[in-house]
Amino acid sequence: MKPRAAFQGELGAFSELAALEYFDREVTVLPRPTFEQVFDAVSAGEADHGVIPIENSLTGSIHDNYDLLLSHDLIITGEIKLRIVHNLLVIPGSRIEDVRRVSSHPQALSQCKDFLSRLEGVELVNVDDTAGAARRVREAGRAEEAAIASEQAALDYGLEILRTGIESNHKNFTRFFVLSRELAEQAEDSKTSIVFSTRDIPGALFKSLSVFALRDINLHKIESRPIPGSPWEYMFYLDFEGDVREDVTRRAIAHLEEIASYLKVLGSYRKGREYIGHPQERRE
Amino acid sequence: MKPRAAFQGELGAFSELAALEYFDREVTVLPRPTFEQVFDAVSAGEADHGVIPIENSLTGSIHDNYDLLLSHDLIITGEIKLRIVHNLLVIPGSRIEDVRRVSSHPQALSQCKDFLSRLEGVELVNVDDTAGAARRVREAGRAEEAAIASEQAALDYGLEILRTGIESNHKNFTRFFVLSRELAEQAEDSKTSIVFSTRDIPGALFKSLSVFALRDINLHKIESRPIPGSPWEYMFYLDFEGDVREDVTRRAIAHLEEIASYLKVLGSYRKGREYIGHPQERRE
Repeated sequence: MKPRAAFQGELGAFSELAALEYFDREVTVLPRPTFEQVFDAVSAGEADHGVIPIENSLTGSIHDNYDLLLSHDLIITGEIKLRIVHNLLVIPGSRIEDVRRVSSHPQALSQCKDFLSRLEGVELVNVDDTAGAARRVREAGRAEEAAIASEQAALDYGLEILRTGIESNHKNFTRFFVLSRELAEQAEDSKTSIVFSTRDIPGALFKSLSVFALRDINLHKIESRPIPGSPWEYMFYLDFEGDVREDVTRRAIAHLEEIASYLKVLGSYRKGREYIGHPQERRE
Repeated sequence: MKPRAAFQGELGAFSELAALEYFDREVTVLPRPTFEQVFDAVSAGEADHGVIPIENSLTGSIHDNYDLLLSHDLIITGEIKLRIVHNLLVIPGSRIEDVRRVSSHPQALSQCKDFLSRLEGVELVNVDDTAGAARRVREAGRAEEAAIASEQAALDYGLEILRTGIESNHKNFTRFFVLSRELAEQAEDSKTSIVFSTRDIPGALFKSLSVFALRDINLHKIESRPIPGSPWEYMFYLDFEGDVREDVTRRAIAHLEEIASYLKVLGSYRKGREYIGHPQERRE
């Protein structure tokens, strides 16, 4: 039986493309309206995996998902980086001069702002997800409506791609985490993600990072998030090279436990590659 | 002549309250629709200062403003932390059972979600700013409309406070920066903010933080932001104790320049205190 992977959004969302590429299309995808419902679906066993965006190379981290990683007990078992290509989608036959309204997720609109600024007298409408914008253009059925979404969304909702690659910066990647209930098998080329808070001691963050530097463990990313109820104190999310089952990683984490007031390992997983999502006809 | 301070939003916005408290009400406030227009107003000399939110103790950093600090040449000259108290505002005479729609900034709605979940059958509407939501309740003039906004907004738009302190977590503070064109006078108890990127060397971030740790300089905050066009590389924003005109700070920064590929000092300023904004009648 194919594994089931939950994602946030509607069919044709970039999170769905990430799930399809990650599992090489051998997966049943389960759309969910919110990120929290993706986490809940995996926790409850309705889905085997969740696929969530964690950061975009232009706009930064998706902080809601960092907060959900802390509040839920799921494990990061995979990573994939998807090149984000935005398209202007319309009903068949509509021309660029017909377009009066463009709907999409606010981040997608913002990533295409150079292109959009050249369309005169066009209204921009924020919606919750790119694929939902495509669906609504289909439902409206009017030549003046356009959506910014993926090629897959064009295929899913029978829309025409009027312009492709309309994002201002083509080095536009979103990094996704694959979540599961159990640790992934140990891989060769792996990364570990943790979250920790420091005790109130001088140079606490510096000392925390020293446990990696002293062992020549490369850091990939650090992200800080506020601790609710403790103004101006932070949780730190760290990605670094190695697997929790390797000796040097285990020792670094044990060392960090001496300094941290809280520490949780979020998972070890094979380093993700970069993909361009390719659209595909859906078979039932 | 009173200094002029630009802020984002409409009269009654929390940013306006921060400006009024910071300048002890001896200030002319200039509302601007966007954060970028606040930066532009100060750069162009239309305003002497800009007051911008930089982080909230529950929801985290306001990343747009970090990005604008990098792209504009303004200097941080002050800091103030404002306790955020949310109120349910209605037209006079409306009762809680009349309310059918509640409008506010999405962050304000999210900060009041426990209170809102107890109101049954009420629609939540996202708008760009809390004070604008209050203005629209006034303009609609219907008992079923409510806004979540400040006490000042109630006063400004002639609305009644039906409930006060409706935020789920009362330890809700927003930290604001005061921006100017020139460096602030040197203060006793000061902080410095910088932004830097690291060269591609092992342990780069650890080495960067060591220039402060080795000199017993306390760090207050670290924030990372993606570098557009360089996927998975980051700018780091750092707040630490001291003034750029002190010897030890100058040496730490000179040392960091040996490690960093880019470094910009954003300003040195007196540490801000925590305030509750008090509403006041406007006099013309």
